[in-house]
Amino acid sequence: MSESPETRLQAALAREIPLSRAIGITVASWDGRTVRLAAPLAPNVNHQDTAFGGSLSAAATLAGWSALWLLLDAHGMQHQVVIQDASIEYRHPVTADFTVECALPEVSTVERFLTTLRERDRARLGLVATVGSPGRELVRFQGRYVALRP
Amino acid sequence: MSESPETRLQAALAREIPLSRAIGITVASWDGRTVRLAAPLAPNVNHQDTAFGGSLSAAATLAGWSALWLLLDAHGMQHQVVIQDASIEYRHPVTADFTVECALPEVSTVERFLTTLRERDRARLGLVATVGSPGRELVRFQGRYVALRP
Repeated sequence: MSESPETRLQAALAREIPLSRAIGITVASWDGRTVRLAAPLAPNVNHQDTAFGGSLSAAATLAGWSALWLLLDAHGMQHQVVIQDASIEYRHPVTADFTVECALPEVSTVERFLTTLRERDRARLGLVATVGSPGRELVRFQGRYVALRP
Repeated sequence: MSESPETRLQAALAREIPLSRAIGITVASWDGRTVRLAAPLAPNVNHQDTAFGGSLSAAATLAGWSALWLLLDAHGMQHQVVIQDASIEYRHPVTADFTVECALPEVSTVERFLTTLRERDRARLGLVATVGSPGRELVRFQGRYVALRP
């Protein structure tokens, strides 16, 4: 457990979700609230030399999964994380290597989620992931995830 | 042009969207209205030995893209297809190799789409893709696609 959370997450992604390797995902940063995943354009490109929507959707799904994994890891909790539903808007083309960012919601929401999870071994959390910068979101993803006792 | 539409689509997917190879997509069938893509579980598995949501989302995105590609191909039209937005519900786990199916909407909607595309070189079509059987949908995806002159 002397490894950083980023290193543990990277290992978990590679081990548990092979697609993360196929799309070249690496864990760029985690500050306790926001996780950033990086991906190269090459394996994710489409016929227009921009990122394929399905790759962006997969990367965003992984960003939400990662934020929740890191939250549970920080609390020493071992629950599984699955996605329940999601929506995604492709606002502008992604024309280069990209990062996808997911921030945990406000503290009170996170606390309520953790309390429910401790009491019922199952809780749901909505997360937003984005590609681009705050002033210019290229892709906006919203997903609802469920953490549950394996 | 003596090849079947399925063969041409398979070549287009492999050439234009490398992710389709990474997730092992093959074109299973096309009857002029419904396309079925097949994918193995192995490259798309998650930590629970079911299909990862991001893989299912990518496969469904490809199914919609394929239905529209085949429609345009059947009409000898050369437009590009991009996705604008999508939503997806993960209703039940996908526990084995899977197919994802996308049917074109009713004829009047398709005709309106083609007329707009001929007149304006740009038109939008909503498509639904599903994994599972009619009585038991495992995954339901709705996407809005845009066809446009390159």
